[in-house]
Amino acid sequence: MKFVKTLSVAGALTALPTLALAQEAAAPTFDEIGPYLMTTLLFLVAGFLVFFMAAGFAMLEAGLVRGKNVAMQLTKNIALFGIASIMYWLVGFNLMYPGEFNGYIGSIFGTTTWLEPVGLDAADADLGYASVASDFFFQLMFVAATASIVSGALAERIKLWPFLAFVAILTGILYPISGSWQWGGGFLSEMGFYDFAGSTVVHSVGGWAALAGAIILGPRLGKYKDGKVNPMPGSNLALATLGTFILWLGWFGFNGGSQLAAGTVGDITDIGRIFANTNMAAAAGAIAALILTQVMFKKVDLTMVLNGALAGLVSITASPLEPTLFGALWIGAVGGVIVVLAVPMLDKLKIDDVVGAIPVHLFAGIWGTIAVVFYTPETSLMTQLTAIVAYGVFTFVAAAVIWFIFKMTVGIRVSEEAEINGLDKAELGMEAYPEFSKG
Amino acid sequence: MKFVKTLSVAGALTALPTLALAQEAAAPTFDEIGPYLMTTLLFLVAGFLVFFMAAGFAMLEAGLVRGKNVAMQLTKNIALFGIASIMYWLVGFNLMYPGEFNGYIGSIFGTTTWLEPVGLDAADADLGYASVASDFFFQLMFVAATASIVSGALAERIKLWPFLAFVAILTGILYPISGSWQWGGGFLSEMGFYDFAGSTVVHSVGGWAALAGAIILGPRLGKYKDGKVNPMPGSNLALATLGTFILWLGWFGFNGGSQLAAGTVGDITDIGRIFANTNMAAAAGAIAALILTQVMFKKVDLTMVLNGALAGLVSITASPLEPTLFGALWIGAVGGVIVVLAVPMLDKLKIDDVVGAIPVHLFAGIWGTIAVVFYTPETSLMTQLTAIVAYGVFTFVAAAVIWFIFKMTVGIRVSEEAEINGLDKAELGMEAYPEFSKG
Amino acid sequence: MKFVKTLSVAGALTALPTLALAQEAAAPTFDEIGPYLMTTLLFLVAGFLVFFMAAGFAMLEAGLVRGKNVAMQLTKNIALFGIASIMYWLVGFNLMYPGEFNGYIGSIFGTTTWLEPVGLDAADADLGYASVASDFFFQLMFVAATASIVSGALAERIKLWPFLAFVAILTGILYPISGSWQWGGGFLSEMGFYDFAGSTVVHSVGGWAALAGAIILGPRLGKYKDGKVNPMPGSNLALATLGTFILWLGWFGFNGGSQLAAGTVGDITDIGRIFANTNMAAAAGAIAALILTQVMFKKVDLTMVLNGALAGLVSITASPLEPTLFGALWIGAVGGVIVVLAVPMLDKLKIDDVVGAIPVHLFAGIWGTIAVVFYTPETSLMTQLTAIVAYGVFTFVAAAVIWFIFKMTVGIRVSEEAEINGLDKAELGMEAYPEFSKG
Repeated sequence: MKFVKTLSVAGALTALPTLALAQEAAAPTFDEIGPYLMTTLLFLVAGFLVFFMAAGFAMLEAGLVRGKNVAMQLTKNIALFGIASIMYWLVGFNLMYPGEFNGYIGSIFGTTTWLEPVGLDAADADLGYASVASDFFFQLMFVAATASIVSGALAERIKLWPFLAFVAILTGILYPISGSWQWGGGFLSEMGFYDFAGSTVVHSVGGWAALAGAIILGPRLGKYKDGKVNPMPGSNLALATLGTFILWLGWFGFNGGSQLAAGTVGDITDIGRIFANTNMAAAAGAIAALILTQVMFKKVDLTMVLNGALAGLVSITASPLEPTLFGALWIGAVGGVIVVLAVPMLDKLKIDDVVGAIPVHLFAGIWGTIAVVFYTPETSLMTQLTAIVAYGVFTFVAAAVIWFIFKMTVGIRVSEEAEINGLDKAELGMEAYPEFSKG
Repeated sequence: MKFVKTLSVAGALTALPTLALAQEAAAPTFDEIGPYLMTTLLFLVAGFLVFFMAAGFAMLEAGLVRGKNVAMQLTKNIALFGIASIMYWLVGFNLMYPGEFNGYIGSIFGTTTWLEPVGLDAADADLGYASVASDFFFQLMFVAATASIVSGALAERIKLWPFLAFVAILTGILYPISGSWQWGGGFLSEMGFYDFAGSTVVHSVGGWAALAGAIILGPRLGKYKDGKVNPMPGSNLALATLGTFILWLGWFGFNGGSQLAAGTVGDITDIGRIFANTNMAAAAGAIAALILTQVMFKKVDLTMVLNGALAGLVSITASPLEPTLFGALWIGAVGGVIVVLAVPMLDKLKIDDVVGAIPVHLFAGIWGTIAVVFYTPETSLMTQLTAIVAYGVFTFVAAAVIWFIFKMTVGIRVSEEAEINGLDKAELGMEAYPEFSKG
Repeated sequence: MKFVKTLSVAGALTALPTLALAQEAAAPTFDEIGPYLMTTLLFLVAGFLVFFMAAGFAMLEAGLVRGKNVAMQLTKNIALFGIASIMYWLVGFNLMYPGEFNGYIGSIFGTTTWLEPVGLDAADADLGYASVASDFFFQLMFVAATASIVSGALAERIKLWPFLAFVAILTGILYPISGSWQWGGGFLSEMGFYDFAGSTVVHSVGGWAALAGAIILGPRLGKYKDGKVNPMPGSNLALATLGTFILWLGWFGFNGGSQLAAGTVGDITDIGRIFANTNMAAAAGAIAALILTQVMFKKVDLTMVLNGALAGLVSITASPLEPTLFGALWIGAVGGVIVVLAVPMLDKLKIDDVVGAIPVHLFAGIWGTIAVVFYTPETSLMTQLTAIVAYGVFTFVAAAVIWFIFKMTVGIRVSEEAEINGLDKAELGMEAYPEFSKG
């Protein structure tokens, strides 16, 4: 930091003639590096916020499964994050942004790596962008979110290791391939597809993978019996609510960080707009679900309110910048309505989605991707629909094939006995709440 | 961001004569926009910290109510946040800062809005301040905190919808009106009232509204019986502790962000001072309650320690910048003492405040507003007292009238049967912990 | 902020001759203060992240103790944080950085203090560094983490007040003394010892203090009986998992903030690298424990996975910047392996460490300090080992003496009856989960 003190602009101006030459060769001034610093900082702050969403998903899912499966759900959540971190580094990042960074073989075992060298010289930095390390950190958190979506839907009956194997493939290969279509500069990006922070690229991809899994895995024992839907209430709504609030918090990083720049007045002001819109959409989704459950069922349903907030967030994710606050409100509210209507619909189809991940991330994700056209200039409904279909077909088919192969080989479902006794005792040999007697 | 790369100061200096003219017309340098970027960033970071206080309040309250009312308390907390977000946008922000921003009718349904346009040009920005969008985001979080205070005090017996209707009025109208007296440049601000981050403007306003509600609503069934106070211990002290830590975290944003500027050495250094003082006051409040409960009751009382920390935080909120660390210590410690003494006092008056919100937010808020005079130059005790009374009279009377009208019309209290069985089953038809048998 | 608007560089350049002189006397430009702002911001953001680790430790420990001791564990955690905050201000900070700041006697009761004056003038600031207030805030959080490590190991049988007295000595005296050897510019720093963020200075110091305490305190009743290890499963693995995720989040501040500078391209890019490496080490530690427990015990052990992640974090803390991502992976993975192997080893030695704090913070801390030599140039294994021994001998001996004196005088262990009935009822007279019947 020393050059700043000794070679500042104020001092420089008093000794202009020599300085002009000196600076050419010397380190750049803060004036030049400021935007780089700000954007890198954005990736770091937004990145840790999105990281924290892992805790949000873990708490949401731990709260919505039954007590006998809580420890397993927690295990899946922390393990999937670890796997996503490793797979995205090992394969995914390079697959998603091909040619952008140094070859990955070198990056794994050698010293060449896409991480910048320690103490990077400003002259070697891409001053128009940001630190690649910070960008990698930020991007990594998105892929982990995708995997978390799947774990919720398939809870309470899927085997641990086949699930983790699927996560490895999803985070290392599937998500990076389809992600590159848009964010890696691929064909959808060239067609003009618009998905600011990933209603489709992240959320509906997770949702499609979950849907394929839920169909092939089948519903929990006793969930659909004699034509009736048997409610299986979550064991801890306090944790589910905490998880929702943590996800809401993390979403400011998810959407705000997707501005990908914070070093100009326009960029930082846009991030402010994104924060305000993101919050509004979540609020509207929650309130829409609150009112709708009161009207439809004569009683408010807390889990619907939580999922309504999340659906509002997913809905605004495709375009959190362009809408007005009123736009964010109604787009988010429609997301909340979708959840309330879609949960019973899935039950009619006997697709058992334990936490409501498919309505929240897939259906609201599709809605958000379509809603882009209302406020975002130069977007086309046809292009948006094309992308939705492309992501849907690719992810659903690929995921279904993988789930099916797993089912036919190692098996993906625990034994009936294990499911009845709970995965915690059967698969882990431990309980999340060993002292609290179960009702 | 491109202009930064191509039109930097270092380059500029080599071509001075033409540049001087060129820059006049061109985009401003980073040197000029830096403070705007930093202050906007402050609002965003502090804003998400204060947002997270919503989760803190939810966990604190969920932990301090009995198990049969937890789902309802969670529902109230997420719903009140949603309502606050919508009402403050719809009415409150313009009411609090009249004339500051574009007319709100236009802002609701039209494209005119106080949010800056997407990709704001630096020439159109108020470079001496920050993005209005980020400021709105930050301010919004304060109004939500006010509403959270009320929900804790009135827990376990108030009806959901009348409570939410009150929240809509509080966040859309009452708080913005009284807030404008000080932060909107109103008469108290002109009198020289000093309330840096809102010991009075936020916390005691929430406390007064809660007090009016608690009196009109009456205590929980069986709380005061045969002249005795019947303890009704909270169901989950782990969540209550988590909530306290989350609130403590959020308070760094609450007080630090209230500096309202981060683009000069003086401002950012002040924020450092505020962080250190805020932490010290919380620590001192907790330790004061720890020692005092040991001395008074021969046993430490964890809920008092938690509320002691919160009271320390409320106490320092009126002036977190000016005191020394020793000042923050004793101001916060007095806050902790107030809570330990005030909780039994309220019980004597048969005012049933489930989570201790009135001692923490109202009494410590008054104390903090008075304590301003010890370290903050040019403040006057009379002015501080005047403001305390003004906020008290206005909020208490207005809230009492509203609660009374609600009581006389729709009713504000659940049936005795519902209260005994718990609001969760009676009003929501679901339980927070369905599997854990109740003692 | 006004000077920025009226005396900006762009404007300045049009009126150069007079300005050059004017600026000499006037406030510095943003160009000069930018690095100071960025580094101060780093301390504030990293500081609040590390603060939140207090909540992480509290949840981890509350989740891993039995239900009857949860309220006590929560009490210890919030109380130790309060004590650390006060003691580090009162004594520790000056002891750790002697001569750096104004005399502390003055700083306590007077107006002289190491906090900068309100509205610090840029001319009086150390523009090559950052706000001292922000630095103090950041450093304070580290000492609190040290104390949290001890509380976990000694849970479920230590008396509250002797524990808190130990915390006061640890945070006020022991940690600052040994911390000054390295971070205060002491003899280890001069020898070339390298401990970037404190694998040894923070984590193993906490671990040594915990080890001394665990030996002198003895195991919980019934833990080792008839040559068998009696498992005493934690009461709430959801909270333990939440605590782990919060610690993981906080660690980005712990390691990233330890760069101590964010105002140059090199510094901010380094922080990006630190974030990525920190995350990788945690992921690898978790996955290593996941695989190893599956292989060794045929069942995954969630608590081992959680501790594996934490051990990965501790392992990378001594050098989170220099390794490649592959380096972070294997260093973290070894940390995870250490935990899985060390927990049963401690049980063989009948050292009862309730939450696994000693394997995680001491053993992985030693490992991380050694692993420095693989990637960090100009470090020497001998120096690293010397420092490990120096910290070990000093902290273990000093802690043992204090624990022993406490044992001989006031006693450090609760009565058998209190231990059997639980500390919550016996020492606090309240329960964390009063309504949930215990198994």
